[in-house]
Amino acid sequence: MAPSNALVDLRSDTVTRPSPAMREAMYRAAVGDDVYLEDPTVNELQVRAAALLGFEAALFVPTGTMGNQICLRLHAPPGSEIIVESRAHVYEWELGALAAVSGLVPRLVPSERGLPTWEAIAAAIQPNVYYRTQTALICLENTHNMHGGTVADLPEMTRILREAAARNLPVHLDGARLFNAAVTLGRTVAELAQGFSSVMVCLSKGLGAPAGSLIFGTQAFIERARVVRKMFGGGMRQAGVLAAAGLVALEEGPAYLAADHANATWLAAELANLPRLHVDITRVETNIVMCDVTQTGLTATAFCERLKPYGVLAGPASPTTVRLVTHRDAPFEACRQAVENIRRFLTDIL
Amino acid sequence: MAPSNALVDLRSDTVTRPSPAMREAMYRAAVGDDVYLEDPTVNELQVRAAALLGFEAALFVPTGTMGNQICLRLHAPPGSEIIVESRAHVYEWELGALAAVSGLVPRLVPSERGLPTWEAIAAAIQPNVYYRTQTALICLENTHNMHGGTVADLPEMTRILREAAARNLPVHLDGARLFNAAVTLGRTVAELAQGFSSVMVCLSKGLGAPAGSLIFGTQAFIERARVVRKMFGGGMRQAGVLAAAGLVALEEGPAYLAADHANATWLAAELANLPRLHVDITRVETNIVMCDVTQTGLTATAFCERLKPYGVLAGPASPTTVRLVTHRDAPFEACRQAVENIRRFLTDIL
Amino acid sequence: MAPSNALVDLRSDTVTRPSPAMREAMYRAAVGDDVYLEDPTVNELQVRAAALLGFEAALFVPTGTMGNQICLRLHAPPGSEIIVESRAHVYEWELGALAAVSGLVPRLVPSERGLPTWEAIAAAIQPNVYYRTQTALICLENTHNMHGGTVADLPEMTRILREAAARNLPVHLDGARLFNAAVTLGRTVAELAQGFSSVMVCLSKGLGAPAGSLIFGTQAFIERARVVRKMFGGGMRQAGVLAAAGLVALEEGPAYLAADHANATWLAAELANLPRLHVDITRVETNIVMCDVTQTGLTATAFCERLKPYGVLAGPASPTTVRLVTHRDAPFEACRQAVENIRRFLTDIL
Amino acid sequence: MAPSNALVDLRSDTVTRPSPAMREAMYRAAVGDDVYLEDPTVNELQVRAAALLGFEAALFVPTGTMGNQICLRLHAPPGSEIIVESRAHVYEWELGALAAVSGLVPRLVPSERGLPTWEAIAAAIQPNVYYRTQTALICLENTHNMHGGTVADLPEMTRILREAAARNLPVHLDGARLFNAAVTLGRTVAELAQGFSSVMVCLSKGLGAPAGSLIFGTQAFIERARVVRKMFGGGMRQAGVLAAAGLVALEEGPAYLAADHANATWLAAELANLPRLHVDITRVETNIVMCDVTQTGLTATAFCERLKPYGVLAGPASPTTVRLVTHRDAPFEACRQAVENIRRFLTDIL
Repeated sequence: MAPSNALVDLRSDTVTRPSPAMREAMYRAAVGDDVYLEDPTVNELQVRAAALLGFEAALFVPTGTMGNQICLRLHAPPGSEIIVESRAHVYEWELGALAAVSGLVPRLVPSERGLPTWEAIAAAIQPNVYYRTQTALICLENTHNMHGGTVADLPEMTRILREAAARNLPVHLDGARLFNAAVTLGRTVAELAQGFSSVMVCLSKGLGAPAGSLIFGTQAFIERARVVRKMFGGGMRQAGVLAAAGLVALEEGPAYLAADHANATWLAAELANLPRLHVDITRVETNIVMCDVTQTGLTATAFCERLKPYGVLAGPASPTTVRLVTHRDAPFEACRQAVENIRRFLTDIL
Repeated sequence: MAPSNALVDLRSDTVTRPSPAMREAMYRAAVGDDVYLEDPTVNELQVRAAALLGFEAALFVPTGTMGNQICLRLHAPPGSEIIVESRAHVYEWELGALAAVSGLVPRLVPSERGLPTWEAIAAAIQPNVYYRTQTALICLENTHNMHGGTVADLPEMTRILREAAARNLPVHLDGARLFNAAVTLGRTVAELAQGFSSVMVCLSKGLGAPAGSLIFGTQAFIERARVVRKMFGGGMRQAGVLAAAGLVALEEGPAYLAADHANATWLAAELANLPRLHVDITRVETNIVMCDVTQTGLTATAFCERLKPYGVLAGPASPTTVRLVTHRDAPFEACRQAVENIRRFLTDIL
Repeated sequence: MAPSNALVDLRSDTVTRPSPAMREAMYRAAVGDDVYLEDPTVNELQVRAAALLGFEAALFVPTGTMGNQICLRLHAPPGSEIIVESRAHVYEWELGALAAVSGLVPRLVPSERGLPTWEAIAAAIQPNVYYRTQTALICLENTHNMHGGTVADLPEMTRILREAAARNLPVHLDGARLFNAAVTLGRTVAELAQGFSSVMVCLSKGLGAPAGSLIFGTQAFIERARVVRKMFGGGMRQAGVLAAAGLVALEEGPAYLAADHANATWLAAELANLPRLHVDITRVETNIVMCDVTQTGLTATAFCERLKPYGVLAGPASPTTVRLVTHRDAPFEACRQAVENIRRFLTDIL
Repeated sequence: MAPSNALVDLRSDTVTRPSPAMREAMYRAAVGDDVYLEDPTVNELQVRAAALLGFEAALFVPTGTMGNQICLRLHAPPGSEIIVESRAHVYEWELGALAAVSGLVPRLVPSERGLPTWEAIAAAIQPNVYYRTQTALICLENTHNMHGGTVADLPEMTRILREAAARNLPVHLDGARLFNAAVTLGRTVAELAQGFSSVMVCLSKGLGAPAGSLIFGTQAFIERARVVRKMFGGGMRQAGVLAAAGLVALEEGPAYLAADHANATWLAAELANLPRLHVDITRVETNIVMCDVTQTGLTATAFCERLKPYGVLAGPASPTTVRLVTHRDAPFEACRQAVENIRRFLTDIL
């Protein structure tokens, strides 16, 4: 539990440190050379995770960015369009890799809460004429980071998958925080992954692993993914030391998420009551809280910078929005302390 | 003049055929090997056009697409962002070359009439943090094709150029129809090109040349552009035969544009009065008319297809919008005939 | 005919100027908008040329570089290998487009005279293991420019095509000067193009057109090629003015090549007899003469530079090799004059 | 020590498993979020390694491939040439990333033992003319994997660095096994890294870490490298767990290399004495043994496949060459056992 004068780090759930069980697992991990497909722990993680998500095969990758970008590249040839929500992580936070590395054109579709309607997607599919780029892929994100950790509406998502399938359009799921969505909906991750052509899931966010993500697809897809992973420089050797932590993350991680969500909901309600902060609590569905700081007169960056001496770390999500993310290393007491400190900070600056 | 039963082709001003003077010029053109920089007609065109636009140097390129894409590539490294209006030609109609060929990420900015406000552009410039793609270029379009040939507001454009310069951000102008803008504003093309880091102008649209465009920049920029032109496969040998027509286009072409604009204005007013067609005549500033056909019950593509037997060619600009473009090969009488035939068509289908 | 004191330009057969018949044809050409596939002259050229080469379809492109690069891109995905002869034009003279634009890896295979043996090619085909790039294409060149215009041995070429077909490997032919090869072998260009997956032929070299090349393939291939042509910025509008010259080039051009070859043979023999020049006359099979100038003490670049005042233009092909190319604008009398002037030049410098 | 009936794995030094000290270090590692530059163990590794190599700064990357490719991309713009030895790892074993991901053209230079002469390199530098790709980088490899772990001749390497500097050409060192070279030459790695613009060193080969490599350069270079690392998907979060093992690898790893080299020398001599095997023992300078198996009548792949049941794993380096690599998990006794088993294998098959 964070002592009252300790730093409460709510910048992201990526800051979680490996748990004792993860460290123990890394210590004991049986390893081999994964480039030769011989790391038993990597293999175990891939087999278990594939079963959990309901896919034929899985591949361990160093980061979610690499996982997403491998899938995008495999589905879509250079010069084709991929339909992504306007504020999608693959467009906003992956350093332009989709264009810079794979030559893909983002076709942006806005949405209310992170999941575009099928109508909006359909309107963005290019007509089949030779002088237009062609649509090769739809990419969804669940939960949606920049919309505040919102969970994709299941019926609409199912409808998108059905309509896309009818048009032979593959659909990739950026499920960096798919386990969070599953907890909120009371569904299994397999239910939320069903129907997608490929899925990426992070072990290193709310689940708490130090590093590593997984991508899922057919056996043939994963074999091609292994080639691209090596081309992108993601073919590590004794990756089993990370995979061991990943196995623990899959075991023990999901159990923490409900508490993270409760903490985020509590945090949102508290912040909404503080002066000059605006929080849309109806959007707090998982472990992310977006807080509009416009009325403090500070930019989000300045707000975060000046909040730091008060023992709370948060990050700017836009020029006017501060993002706070709950996670297993910031339990309720830490969140409570964070609210106290933010209150004090606001008193001082206003 | 088009006889009453001839096809009136209003799909684009790209359909113009070379004039007798152009054919004569091509016939007589002194030519050399332009890869060796020895084609006298190409050289003359480049020198004359550079003087006309007020730039140090110019380069002849086969198409406007190549011209734009060369400039984009030279200003922006792979993985950087280029700010473009949401419906910009470089994003919508150049086959994804910006990403597929040069690895650039489009950052889309909406606008009312084709020119985003500086505020909208400024908000799209990325903060200087390492984990975000960086903004490398602003790209404007004048006239703006998909907004209906609208002319960029000169004070706002000047403001954008000034603000961009203050941030060391280059600005490219897609001036495929810059001469049209100049005619409407009563300005020289040099006045409209001033302050841009690079400009592309088409000889093959309203100016009537069979093929060819020009790009403009500093001498050093144009030397680098020549390299990229060759890499893109645009280094033609005796290009002087096209440049000869281009010189004529520069001479005689601008004089036709005022009539094109008058015809477009007249056409827009007539179509606006026809049943079930919607035309925003306040947007008809040059030679393009956008006509919303939603209320006919036809898609734009079907509308154009079924209109064809009535002797009028037009093109879909969106699922609900038909675009008609006036040009020197469709003089007033042809436009008058087109309106008659569209009226008859509407009577038949409604 | 070049007067005795005129410049004889033997730098390349690309310097040929359009003939009167070509100028006449350009003057009269029926044209339309080729982006809409409506340019009758372009269409005629494509149909005629496809019949001539024995292919389903053809596409007119601005340059040979664009033609080659379109084919390479269509056959090979980014990150795959294309087997090319060590000094192939697609590797040496196309500004790195194969990598820079299409992400392809050149796998270089040396050869004696421009055509690698099947054994050498076979040894360069990658084993089918996931951690190696995969071979996607073999690219041959006939005649081979950097080897001195050498003609590919027909039986070996046939064998390569057969073996490649047995391995489902497509083979592209850079036939920039395929008509020269046909003349030397007494074969039709169709015979030399048979079995290739795609072929590129230039109209602008020995055939004399001012600009333009053609690529050949199946109908489906050419439809995809049209997309890439537009992406590369090669989709010109009234391209018929160039195609008209191209049709004349196809008609009247081949008849000039025998004379070009005879002139080159004569030129080679004469140069071989001059002091300090070394010419391997056994390699002069078409219209190119490679002349080693090492023993003059000059680099090839310096040799060419200092030769210029003597009225002869030639170009460096390597630091020690000067290339001379015969063509229809440098008939025998011009070649004779060139030899005289080179002799005088050597006397002066040695 | 490998018991007599255990598998001796000589495929690569990448198969080494983390030592007890490494596991302990991973277990105890202080970690943070390295994307925020806050992982203390990663930071410590980077600072220590930079000091060790004599560079301003270092960056931890998941693999040697990513490390090399980041450096290549930073030094050379798309479409430029990088001079590499004909069998360089960056060309042969990195899945074409240099072209597929960064658009670079390999300019191959052959060599006797892995290090081209300056003359060979100089001849491969492109002349500064606009219609040729330009040389942007020289890439050396020390030790040279495919040449059999050969060590770069220090005087020649110094000369290359001096000449390159005189031409403002950056030089990158693929030092995946630079510590091996240092041991053989009795030099520090700093001495062997001096003068290079950037260096990549692997922690996961002979040094024994489970995964991870480092790249070195100026502070400004490493800051740009961090951007590309993220774009390539190499920005892991609590990378400190791997860095902790890397720190141990730097401490304890080098001490093992002398034994690895002695074992390789012994192994080479023994194999050279076996029937039908050919080993050039003059090339065995570090921990790699290349063994020509042509005279066994087997391909290298078949040789390795059929050797497996005899308890020895080796890998094909070419169709006729088998590569054996010594490392800390295959001490002398294991090598002795391997020779015994290969002898028995040969007796059985011959």
